[in-house]
Amino acid sequence: MSTSVASAIEAPSLAVSTVIFTLRPCEDGQLKLALPLVKRIRAPFEGQWALPGGPLKPDEDLADAAASKLKQTTGLEPRYLEQLYAFGNLDRSPMSKLEDRVVSIVYWALVGTVEAEKAIESENVHWFWADELPKLAFDHNLIVEYALWRLRNKLEYSRLAHGFLPETFTLAQLREVYEAVLNKPLDPANFRRMVESNGAVVATGERLAGTRHRPPQLYRYDSSIDLTDLGPLGEKQ
Amino acid sequence: MSTSVASAIEAPSLAVSTVIFTLRPCEDGQLKLALPLVKRIRAPFEGQWALPGGPLKPDEDLADAAASKLKQTTGLEPRYLEQLYAFGNLDRSPMSKLEDRVVSIVYWALVGTVEAEKAIESENVHWFWADELPKLAFDHNLIVEYALWRLRNKLEYSRLAHGFLPETFTLAQLREVYEAVLNKPLDPANFRRMVESNGAVVATGERLAGTRHRPPQLYRYDSSIDLTDLGPLGEKQ
Repeated sequence: MSTSVASAIEAPSLAVSTVIFTLRPCEDGQLKLALPLVKRIRAPFEGQWALPGGPLKPDEDLADAAASKLKQTTGLEPRYLEQLYAFGNLDRSPMSKLEDRVVSIVYWALVGTVEAEKAIESENVHWFWADELPKLAFDHNLIVEYALWRLRNKLEYSRLAHGFLPETFTLAQLREVYEAVLNKPLDPANFRRMVESNGAVVATGERLAGTRHRPPQLYRYDSSIDLTDLGPLGEKQ
Repeated sequence: MSTSVASAIEAPSLAVSTVIFTLRPCEDGQLKLALPLVKRIRAPFEGQWALPGGPLKPDEDLADAAASKLKQTTGLEPRYLEQLYAFGNLDRSPMSKLEDRVVSIVYWALVGTVEAEKAIESENVHWFWADELPKLAFDHNLIVEYALWRLRNKLEYSRLAHGFLPETFTLAQLREVYEAVLNKPLDPANFRRMVESNGAVVATGERLAGTRHRPPQLYRYDSSIDLTDLGPLGEKQ
């Protein structure tokens, strides 16, 4: 039924890309948000950095496509994966012709800081600080900016920080994640009050192993609260 | 470059659909959430009701496609239009073959209650109460359920109720919108306190025209706060 229309101007093609965030220590030891980018090896934007992604395979679910691209680019499994937005406007690429139009369904993912140490890096896959990106291919700077905005908004009312942390963690580690994502220092006492009144994080009763006289308490997220709150959609969409 | 791949199994095609909400008075005069559906005139799901939508035209932006489908189905302009989600899993339609796979980018829209009185209705376009839907085509019941969840969540922390209201309104009218969307009665005094502490709604200094001894005050939304909060994406994506 759509063949005759498609033959006049080809229908837009469909790609899936992923913004993959992790936290990495910078030179002074502080954690900072980082993401992997892939160097384009063909036109348009040949030689520029871009989000990992590619055409949607005919037999692949959207979230599976995003996760498999993440795996392929970084060697890692996501701790959190959520659909961000579908970008498909005609002006996404200044040089685009209608025949080259691509609609990108973009996901965003969190990778744990410990896992991220084992991430793949190569000539064509490089990790960048989220606030020091070069000019990226297509509208990918805008996409990263929007993903950062979503991450920061969502951190405030969800268990999202858990995506960066191990199963148990100290309050100082949790605060470090918040500081890195929000990119500002937080008062430790106020932070503790916020966490305790929120109720999403519970004390395990255990303490950090180590030689300190009074090692800090370990906490975990209350697993009865869902990390991905997609309401009726559940996790696998 | 992708032509040889596409010729093996055709790439998924792309559609844009819209969930269009308005409030309409039911028999007892109370406002209730309603949405228009379109009867399918071809297989699959021939004769079943479905969300208005269709294939994305090669030269049309995503949001424009959603708005134009809304206009075509209802004769109306949206007061609010936002991308909801891209639905593209392989199991969207139980009978689907890979060649028939469709990825739907779904928008949701609000139409003002006054405007909605002039909406088109016909044998193939019918308005349904949001909580009394028949079994719809494809995964459209799930899509409506998710759109309702988004609407209810968003109502609590945004100026979204404005999408249903005229420029100025009484607090009773505003409360009626909240009650209809959340589907529960709200205490008038608590509601007034919530609105006043929120700051998004400001008194105009005028009162409702009428014959009552002490007509209620008129309010408006503070226009310095954006209705659509898409962060860096702005309104036109």
